[in-house]
Amino acid sequence: MFSYRNLRPAFQKSKCLLSHQGKQPVANMTESSNKFKLPARYGAGEKSVWVEYIQLNAEYKPQVNLGQGFPDFHAPDHVRKALADVTTGPDPLLNQYTRGFGHPSLVKNLSRLYSPLFGREIDPMNEVLVTCGAYEALYSAILGHVDSGDEVVVIEPFFDCYDFMIRMAGGVPRFIALKPRPNAGQNMSSADWVLDEAELASLFNSKTKMIILNTPHNPLGKVFTQSELTLIADLCKKHNVLCLSDEVYEWMVYAPHKHIRIATLPDMWQRTITVGSAGKSFSVTGWKLGWALAPAPLMRNLQVVHQNCVYTCCTPVQEAVARAIDFELSRWGSPDCYYVSLARELEAKRDQLLKTLRDNGFKPTTPDGCYFIVADWTDLENKIDLSTEPDQYKDYKFTKKFAKEASVLAIPPTAFYSPEHKHLGENYARFCFIKKDENLALTDKLLREWNAGKK
Amino acid sequence: MFSYRNLRPAFQKSKCLLSHQGKQPVANMTESSNKFKLPARYGAGEKSVWVEYIQLNAEYKPQVNLGQGFPDFHAPDHVRKALADVTTGPDPLLNQYTRGFGHPSLVKNLSRLYSPLFGREIDPMNEVLVTCGAYEALYSAILGHVDSGDEVVVIEPFFDCYDFMIRMAGGVPRFIALKPRPNAGQNMSSADWVLDEAELASLFNSKTKMIILNTPHNPLGKVFTQSELTLIADLCKKHNVLCLSDEVYEWMVYAPHKHIRIATLPDMWQRTITVGSAGKSFSVTGWKLGWALAPAPLMRNLQVVHQNCVYTCCTPVQEAVARAIDFELSRWGSPDCYYVSLARELEAKRDQLLKTLRDNGFKPTTPDGCYFIVADWTDLENKIDLSTEPDQYKDYKFTKKFAKEASVLAIPPTAFYSPEHKHLGENYARFCFIKKDENLALTDKLLREWNAGKK
Repeated sequence: MFSYRNLRPAFQKSKCLLSHQGKQPVANMTESSNKFKLPARYGAGEKSVWVEYIQLNAEYKPQVNLGQGFPDFHAPDHVRKALADVTTGPDPLLNQYTRGFGHPSLVKNLSRLYSPLFGREIDPMNEVLVTCGAYEALYSAILGHVDSGDEVVVIEPFFDCYDFMIRMAGGVPRFIALKPRPNAGQNMSSADWVLDEAELASLFNSKTKMIILNTPHNPLGKVFTQSELTLIADLCKKHNVLCLSDEVYEWMVYAPHKHIRIATLPDMWQRTITVGSAGKSFSVTGWKLGWALAPAPLMRNLQVVHQNCVYTCCTPVQEAVARAIDFELSRWGSPDCYYVSLARELEAKRDQLLKTLRDNGFKPTTPDGCYFIVADWTDLENKIDLSTEPDQYKDYKFTKKFAKEASVLAIPPTAFYSPEHKHLGENYARFCFIKKDENLALTDKLLREWNAGKK
Repeated sequence: MFSYRNLRPAFQKSKCLLSHQGKQPVANMTESSNKFKLPARYGAGEKSVWVEYIQLNAEYKPQVNLGQGFPDFHAPDHVRKALADVTTGPDPLLNQYTRGFGHPSLVKNLSRLYSPLFGREIDPMNEVLVTCGAYEALYSAILGHVDSGDEVVVIEPFFDCYDFMIRMAGGVPRFIALKPRPNAGQNMSSADWVLDEAELASLFNSKTKMIILNTPHNPLGKVFTQSELTLIADLCKKHNVLCLSDEVYEWMVYAPHKHIRIATLPDMWQRTITVGSAGKSFSVTGWKLGWALAPAPLMRNLQVVHQNCVYTCCTPVQEAVARAIDFELSRWGSPDCYYVSLARELEAKRDQLLKTLRDNGFKPTTPDGCYFIVADWTDLENKIDLSTEPDQYKDYKFTKKFAKEASVLAIPPTAFYSPEHKHLGENYARFCFIKKDENLALTDKLLREWNAGKK
């Protein structure tokens, strides 16, 4: 009988075959490396901050990783059990291909969830697209709408993929930075980070196709107010521009703040693509399931991209998320509903990490939403030798050296700025607080120890 | 307390808000519809055959759906149980983001599986990319390598996404059809469908970037032979061309035929991207997990596309597939190993469907691999009135009318040909046989009844 182990000799033998490579003329190899270079539309194909910092985490193994935005605790039991039930359940078709634009039970339950929140009946078959994470929803929206030469207004700091996706589509990003109010003082909240109205208006012109909004905002935690959203909406309407609204942190908002969906502002549904995430909503970032909601004429463009890139998403995951939404709707209004219970738990974690950071020489911005804290580290500059880190930007130097010395990993925010505005992010580090209480306590201990060692 | 049902009044109220739409000048709407049209790179954004035939299936509800390629029976217990175990298991991180280019345990086990089969040590970190289905692997390979004006040789009939992806990348597909040998006779096998060597050679020139190979071949079931692959490999080497080898049906090959990986031919590893599928391998097409294997310099281009389109794939699904591969490797060589047991089951199903088709007036091609049968239906032309179907191509007319009359759904192969060669597919229909025995028996009954009604 054929044995797998017996294949090893074939492997040995073909090492000889592989020596044929030596016969190939060097000219051909040189020609190859030119011929098979990255297509021009991808630019230099630069490495993402995530690849670099996941590598850093693997290499230095800091005791606490407050880098990437995912919980280190269990997702709700009912959510995980739903996936187990679906895949081992009686219906074999729930492990097979489903409808490309979204599994029927999921798009139906997304419509049930969001129709009241948007104040309109959302058509599950034509106004919902299920995607491989919110990431692919952003991709389908940007690639499906941005054509060569189109301008896209991007608010800084921004989730780093926006910029790349716009450029890949041949578009031109036009950046505007959220900046702290001059009189914000020491104990800033994310509401103190604001856009300059005249500067924003000046970016809109006849070439503007889209603005990308992210509320609640990563990394600042800003929850855009009604008047801030109205300003954006008015510019969109005046210049006939789409709004791509990344609302993946819609449930992580801390009292008294409220998440407002820009698509619910007057005349905005027809020009808004709203992006949501099962991963963020149910603490299963690894499930990679998201969605876009938009009127059918705008959605058609996203469908074309989606059907030619991944075609359809994981069926059992879609069915499990459909059941999870159904369960949360059945306990809507109860304090146990995960959509509110998670935010309650996160608020306590936020306050714990804010205290740790303040007690240890950082000046954090209190976030009103999302699960990150951006903290100014410059008061610690005289305690840490950044000269050993070869990076260009000071926040990269600081977060790397700090991970090595204090054993706590954070993310450098300049990754979320355009080259011309990177200096605006250099004084900060981003810390994620959707972590077990014991890891937040460990962070406190590690920072105190680091500070003590510096005295 | 806030009640979900109480939101309905808000919905009613905002219907008034929505009447603001009526105030918008019509000119703006017209301008909108122009401004928000599909970017030029997507062409007309034509509907895929899958969207159309899934719709047809939903509308006419034929008793047997032999259209899309997925099993209607259960995936192996160990595979489904692995997913249930992972998601409900003790490690919360198995429901969170994992490494973008592939979950570590999965890329390691893919290397263990494939290194002996490719006769070389495959580097799990640099020569494997895990993707959202083989579909996204094809997308990353084509978008990552085909630049504006590059030519790509495509063998017809072809999996329909190839063409769209090439055009989206700005490439130019150059088509060549597999054609039946003139002397093949009535009982053709898929080996009788061949390429004209001179015609193939004539398609290669200095602009050729890539050839797409699909073996075992969908829809014909052709398993390319050593000499056929050598012809292709020699042309690739002569013209310094990449080979994108879609091998998702690698385990569905019927004795005495053998699947040969073109990357194992001399000097071919360095210019081949091989695509595989967990969905096809383990009968879980709905899990949407695939991979590409390629040398690191070629892989880099795929990584850039992947990291900016979906970034990372579903973690629990990746871990479950890693465990499933580990289990199959532990029983490698046993007749129970799913990689061989599925093909054994499929061979019996193939023979059953071949008999049904022959007994009922079709002239099927016996497939040596894959799980489709392409059958010539023209002997039935005088028994079926196609004039009521408005489609352009006869195979669309036939499969639609046949679904309505005989209650068996098949796929029209002209969907897998370029416009200039569609006439080559018009006389055929594609039937999928990875279906429960009872559904193949029902197919037999339905075809006999249909034939009886036509006498």
